Amino acid sequence: MQVEVTWVEGMEFRADAESGHSWNMDASVEVGGNDLGPRPTEMLLSAVGGCTGIDIVSILKKMQQPLTGLRIEVFGERAEEHPRRFTKIKLHYVVTGEGLSEERVARAVQLSTEKYCSVLSSLNAEVTYGFEVVQA
Amino acid sequence: MQVEVTWVEGMEFRADAESGHSWNMDASVEVGGNDLGPRPTEMLLSAVGGCTGIDIVSILKKMQQPLTGLRIEVFGERAEEHPRRFTKIKLHYVVTGEGLSEERVARAVQLSTEKYCSVLSSLNAEVTYGFEVVQA
Repeated sequence: MQVEVTWVEGMEFRADAESGHSWNMDASVEVGGNDLGPRPTEMLLSAVGGCTGIDIVSILKKMQQPLTGLRIEVFGERAEEHPRRFTKIKLHYVVTGEGLSEERVARAVQLSTEKYCSVLSSLNAEVTYGFEVVQA
Repeated sequence: MQVEVTWVEGMEFRADAESGHSWNMDASVEVGGNDLGPRPTEMLLSAVGGCTGIDIVSILKKMQQPLTGLRIEVFGERAEEHPRRFTKIKLHYVVTGEGLSEERVARAVQLSTEKYCSVLSSLNAEVTYGFEVVQA
């Protein structure tokens, strides 16, 4: 798998992926960027959320659970010292559906975070998670 | 730092970041998505490229090097077995500028990959890199 990242100007970069999609990233104004796109570190956290999200939707579908909504809050804690790596990733899943089984949701979250999520398992951070089920 | 990831439909998710930017991700058609955005794994590789790219631009600027172009090819190799984590990240930097010092470019690449890049240092993959300088 390959992504090509090309400097645009300032601290703005464009990413071109094998899937055919392109998107931009930029640094904040505070550190000399122009805020013309999200930060690379935000991209990393979104990759975590998207990866585990796809898992959860797939697993709950296989379990024939009536999922109608899913939101994942991804918090990243970083070291103070350079290279300021992500030391902790905290995930909070808000899973919505009338008649969802809490037990199955718990199992889906566990399977993704501990077994299936490619992005999470590529990180060296400590991962913690919690979830809530909204019956609606 | 926080990113919120919300299920749209199918396997499509929207990310909302603290910086105010939003973007979408989706799975490929082959695995049941609709390809309405890049894969989360591509986001991860782009985060690597954007992070080290911002470093390189900043470091070469401090070194007063005449940088006019920068492209970074980010290759990711994944394990065969679930969770198919990224086991190797290979970076190739193409650095352009009339009068660029190869030595300084080498130093900038080394500083980013080994010391400064937050995203790279958050991964557990083996990282290798190379670069070429284009005098143009």
